[in-house]
Amino acid sequence: MKTIISPLKITEFIRQARRKGKKVGFVPTMGYLHDGHLALVKSAKRDNDVIVMSIFVNPTQFGPKEDYAKYPRDFKRDAHLAKKEGVDVIFYPTAKDMYLANHSTYVTVENLSNNLCGRSRPGHFRGVATVVAKLFNIIPADSAYFGQKDAQQAFIIKRMARDLNIPINVKIVPTVREKDGLAMSSRNVYLNKSQRREGATLFRSLSLAKRLIRQGERNSSKIIKAVRDFINRNNFARIDYISIVNTDTLRDIKKLKGQVLIAIAAYFGKTRLIDNVILKVR
Amino acid sequence: MKTIISPLKITEFIRQARRKGKKVGFVPTMGYLHDGHLALVKSAKRDNDVIVMSIFVNPTQFGPKEDYAKYPRDFKRDAHLAKKEGVDVIFYPTAKDMYLANHSTYVTVENLSNNLCGRSRPGHFRGVATVVAKLFNIIPADSAYFGQKDAQQAFIIKRMARDLNIPINVKIVPTVREKDGLAMSSRNVYLNKSQRREGATLFRSLSLAKRLIRQGERNSSKIIKAVRDFINRNNFARIDYISIVNTDTLRDIKKLKGQVLIAIAAYFGKTRLIDNVILKVR
Repeated sequence: MKTIISPLKITEFIRQARRKGKKVGFVPTMGYLHDGHLALVKSAKRDNDVIVMSIFVNPTQFGPKEDYAKYPRDFKRDAHLAKKEGVDVIFYPTAKDMYLANHSTYVTVENLSNNLCGRSRPGHFRGVATVVAKLFNIIPADSAYFGQKDAQQAFIIKRMARDLNIPINVKIVPTVREKDGLAMSSRNVYLNKSQRREGATLFRSLSLAKRLIRQGERNSSKIIKAVRDFINRNNFARIDYISIVNTDTLRDIKKLKGQVLIAIAAYFGKTRLIDNVILKVR
Repeated sequence: MKTIISPLKITEFIRQARRKGKKVGFVPTMGYLHDGHLALVKSAKRDNDVIVMSIFVNPTQFGPKEDYAKYPRDFKRDAHLAKKEGVDVIFYPTAKDMYLANHSTYVTVENLSNNLCGRSRPGHFRGVATVVAKLFNIIPADSAYFGQKDAQQAFIIKRMARDLNIPINVKIVPTVREKDGLAMSSRNVYLNKSQRREGATLFRSLSLAKRLIRQGERNSSKIIKAVRDFINRNNFARIDYISIVNTDTLRDIKKLKGQVLIAIAAYFGKTRLIDNVILKVR
């Protein structure tokens, strides 16, 4: 496995691979890999000949009070895991090479960025869309793989690639969970023992929502209330939002119909966890 | 000469040309071609084997009170001129194909977009940066050619391509002028006879500024005052701005030093004309 630091060199590497007729799959990450990331690699390997992973903790997607400085990093461990999983090349740029002096350009995906996590993390999705647009140009792959855990991010990137005519196929891979249902996240390392145990309530509350829908419930407020009551009964998490939205607009809906996203964010201590489920409702 | 309407088809056309080792030059336009556009084609032909011109009046760069609907259009004439000049393929998309339903993504180039024309045309450069980012992805050329007449636009696009890692060389081509010095512009057709005559004052006032600088003047306010007085003495134009800025930041400077842009915008009747000069000052 190669590690490439220079944006120009990785572009050349990808171009050469594609010139030889190889299909290239791209897995963008902020590192501190867990089984969720490795599931992205597994998906990428099913469709492609060459797998590129980027590891870059992107400063522009963190708010001034967020955890950019203390975001967990361990390149050696990441490189080991990536290699074992069959990654061919890691792109591991410096922040200075990614954001040159007088960097001025930002990509925003309006509408989709305002609701859900966009409410409590202003500017976050602007940073995400900007760095992914850059990465897509640096790594002109056939397909790129994102986890459903960050559903809003995945929908925003899909829309961004379409709107900017970036010829990369954006694929969304199902969330990987711990045994008790907690969605894998690099931020789970922040949780203490009781927070870790309580974290699984998010998944269980989403399962409750699914059950209600299967039983015929179509009223958003009723489902949201049941989910909220369930979380409040079972732990001390501070709920940021529980929302049910249309997956095209990410706007709240009153009656469930078509493809819907049920998304939750909650603080366990200072750690903000998110989880979601996507359903087709008739 | 070919005309291609479909974004996907033009991308495939460019890829095939490049796969054969051809250099591709791209000239983006809004049509209604004049000698300024043809000078871009001439520059492109010097560096490339295949010349692509896009003709697209981009709705997102016009303000609600601007001239999108009545912007001059004449595809037949444009195609004739382009062919005569040696363009190989025209990309002539519909607005519907360029902006799909639920288009949500915009590219902004902060700082560079706020001053000069950005002041009187809010949102204009966001529309320009967005459509050019799209065009650069649709037409993955080696180089793209922009006229210096729209200097702020050219600097914004250069920065945008750099910041988003778009591997297209952005080249700025000197302004082409009428015999009396008026910068060529598709909007010159809006001018009546006396406005047309007065339009040339912009160029003459810039020549005055150059003369003052050659004589040693380095004080921006003094140069701006001289230019303003000259224009006011010679015609009835309503000056929008006269600015002297650093070409890296496009911010106003007090003392001239390094590469500077002297830019003017003025209304002749309802028609807004712009002109500029770029100088290296020691």
